[in-house]
Amino acid sequence: MISTEIITIGDELLIGQVLDTNSKWIAQQLNKVGIDVCYKTTVGDVELDILNAIKLAFSRVSIVLLTGGLGPTKDDITKNTLCKYFDTRLVFDDETLSNVEQVLKNINRNINELTRNQAYVPEGATIIQNKMGTAPITWFEQDGKVLVSMPGVPFEMKWSMQEEVIPRLINFFPTSDSIQHLTFWVKNYSESALAMHLETFERNLPDNIKLAYLPTPGLVRLRLTGKDTDKDILSDSMSSQRKFLFDLLQDNILYEDDEALEYKLHNLFVNNGLTLSLAESCTGGRLASLFTAIPGSSQYFKGGVVCYSNESKINLLGVNKETIEKEGAVSLSVVNQLVDGACKIFNTDCSIAISGIAGPDGGTLEKPVGTVCIAVRYKDQVSSFHFCFSHNRESNILRSCNTAMSLLLEMIS
Amino acid sequence: MISTEIITIGDELLIGQVLDTNSKWIAQQLNKVGIDVCYKTTVGDVELDILNAIKLAFSRVSIVLLTGGLGPTKDDITKNTLCKYFDTRLVFDDETLSNVEQVLKNINRNINELTRNQAYVPEGATIIQNKMGTAPITWFEQDGKVLVSMPGVPFEMKWSMQEEVIPRLINFFPTSDSIQHLTFWVKNYSESALAMHLETFERNLPDNIKLAYLPTPGLVRLRLTGKDTDKDILSDSMSSQRKFLFDLLQDNILYEDDEALEYKLHNLFVNNGLTLSLAESCTGGRLASLFTAIPGSSQYFKGGVVCYSNESKINLLGVNKETIEKEGAVSLSVVNQLVDGACKIFNTDCSIAISGIAGPDGGTLEKPVGTVCIAVRYKDQVSSFHFCFSHNRESNILRSCNTAMSLLLEMIS
Repeated sequence: MISTEIITIGDELLIGQVLDTNSKWIAQQLNKVGIDVCYKTTVGDVELDILNAIKLAFSRVSIVLLTGGLGPTKDDITKNTLCKYFDTRLVFDDETLSNVEQVLKNINRNINELTRNQAYVPEGATIIQNKMGTAPITWFEQDGKVLVSMPGVPFEMKWSMQEEVIPRLINFFPTSDSIQHLTFWVKNYSESALAMHLETFERNLPDNIKLAYLPTPGLVRLRLTGKDTDKDILSDSMSSQRKFLFDLLQDNILYEDDEALEYKLHNLFVNNGLTLSLAESCTGGRLASLFTAIPGSSQYFKGGVVCYSNESKINLLGVNKETIEKEGAVSLSVVNQLVDGACKIFNTDCSIAISGIAGPDGGTLEKPVGTVCIAVRYKDQVSSFHFCFSHNRESNILRSCNTAMSLLLEMIS
Repeated sequence: MISTEIITIGDELLIGQVLDTNSKWIAQQLNKVGIDVCYKTTVGDVELDILNAIKLAFSRVSIVLLTGGLGPTKDDITKNTLCKYFDTRLVFDDETLSNVEQVLKNINRNINELTRNQAYVPEGATIIQNKMGTAPITWFEQDGKVLVSMPGVPFEMKWSMQEEVIPRLINFFPTSDSIQHLTFWVKNYSESALAMHLETFERNLPDNIKLAYLPTPGLVRLRLTGKDTDKDILSDSMSSQRKFLFDLLQDNILYEDDEALEYKLHNLFVNNGLTLSLAESCTGGRLASLFTAIPGSSQYFKGGVVCYSNESKINLLGVNKETIEKEGAVSLSVVNQLVDGACKIFNTDCSIAISGIAGPDGGTLEKPVGTVCIAVRYKDQVSSFHFCFSHNRESNILRSCNTAMSLLLEMIS
């Protein structure tokens, strides 16, 4: 198995000003093509730390991927540090200059002194033109190992990996190793209850297959990972384990594969020509933003109301004022009226309505923080449910979204 | 300056199944109290890798913070690995057992065989009870240095750090070192144009003050970081640099401090008793979810319509059908009607309307992907704007949200 270390560079990552989403994405992509990520390291814009991190990485892996520190400003020192590590110097490259000019032209900007400096590249390295930004991608080879330096801007890094770096890595490290994952989304179990239920199964797993538990609010994602040099033997072995898991968990497996719930539903809506609307109170637009983050969601998502006030529930979605006064805004009756209202005003096949107390304030003795009511509707079927989640606002919002999507998925499937 | 390394543990982080948000949050909190994070390392659930990471960390920093690998399931090996590193063994601890029972009781669950095992703790370490979960926090000391192992579940880790670990670290490492940050949100400049404008300023900065550029979609966040043993001298020096920056950038500084835009507006709404509503098309609920993620947002946020279809723009928000037919859904006229509609149906002081083509599909020659119209309204004032952003869906959604919030902030301020 070809091993990789990801090194992310930038003071902003160490003072917590920026969240690193790059390394998660890179790990996912490499994993799919059978390249193992074994370490991730973050260092600041400090020459000695970058040099040491590269040295350590080369001592333990075959592929070193660097992101960040390639901007045109003075705080970005990755390029000069790479020259020092590989004992080379910067030279001006006309091809890179043309690319920088073209990239800037695409966003209606002219080249300036700083962006022109992006055309200075390490001599002797392979330069890969970055069609999405001004910082070129640099590829170094040493003793049969590879280091690639990429920009840290997420969409530039993603383009670089997908279009250039991954194909070149596959070419450089031809391998017969195989890695396979199976993922199962399990409901009705806490992480520890599930682990006890699967104790014997886990003990009897062959050495080359590992089981991992990944709890998300409302569900446990279960992952089987197998590694073998023979792809077919591995596939057979994974199938057997899959069958054992289904015997043990049966209907508690909501679905298989690594697709998040919103993607699962997205595909179901698109493939079956169904339409969706939402009425969100305590989730405050989070569920809508999960669906609308997916390209093509406008095919089925007609809209939603973030009905944060009682007035908006009454005036926009037709909830009965007396119902709110009698039973409260967080009640089964209200979500039933909300889900009907959303289906009606957006004229959709499916709808989800959520009303709850996300916290940290707003709870009462009768309805503590974490109380959430959810109704789902598919054509003429309506079901509604009452839950008591946790004390944490973020967890309540996410768990409400996940639970609502699970309920609709089951109703449609 | 006391130096720290954060080690995050878990295979799920290396195959890209889970996004590490913990280390960003930890870095932020430590920075506030003058503790420097110098390195972040991620390793899998592999004993040798964890042992090596701890050894390297102790060789270069004074504080080692571990998160993850403390769950009750078999794939979690951190506790046993720590015993190996510190040459100790697990012993049963009654106080931890009581805490586990209490934590489970709070969420209406009983203890089982696996959760009971959480009461086995490393002999000789200081055990800190985790009031939010079943995995105890473990504190080790070695040659005047400290290692703390915490759970990886974000809200458990946050509680542990805030209530227990940070106060104990401050106590263990009394320091007179001071670290200060100033953050400025700058509009109207790209990162490189801003860097050129500030070139002389940056060159003349004293050695103990660093400047960093952090571009976010639509804005550049500029950060000045100073370090000194004398707090007052540092404050004076930072004030002078701040004055220079204001002379150079003037009105282009949207605001100071590290607060994200939605928090800035949140405080403004709360302090001035203003109310807000939204009409979101291409941002699909993302802007609503940014506000509603903040506790207390129900004080001012009355609601929003995610008007993804033309019908919802017409039927719910009163947009004229002819306007859409003549000028298209992405037009200044439509967002003007949307912002008025939202103010009216939610009865609010302020409103934001956004309609655009997020991509990757849906663009035309006249209105390419990235075309976004935004209207903001405060009482009787309305302004609307036409933008041409990028080709990337996620970037267009975020930039639309940031730009819309900037525009409303300027209108109100």
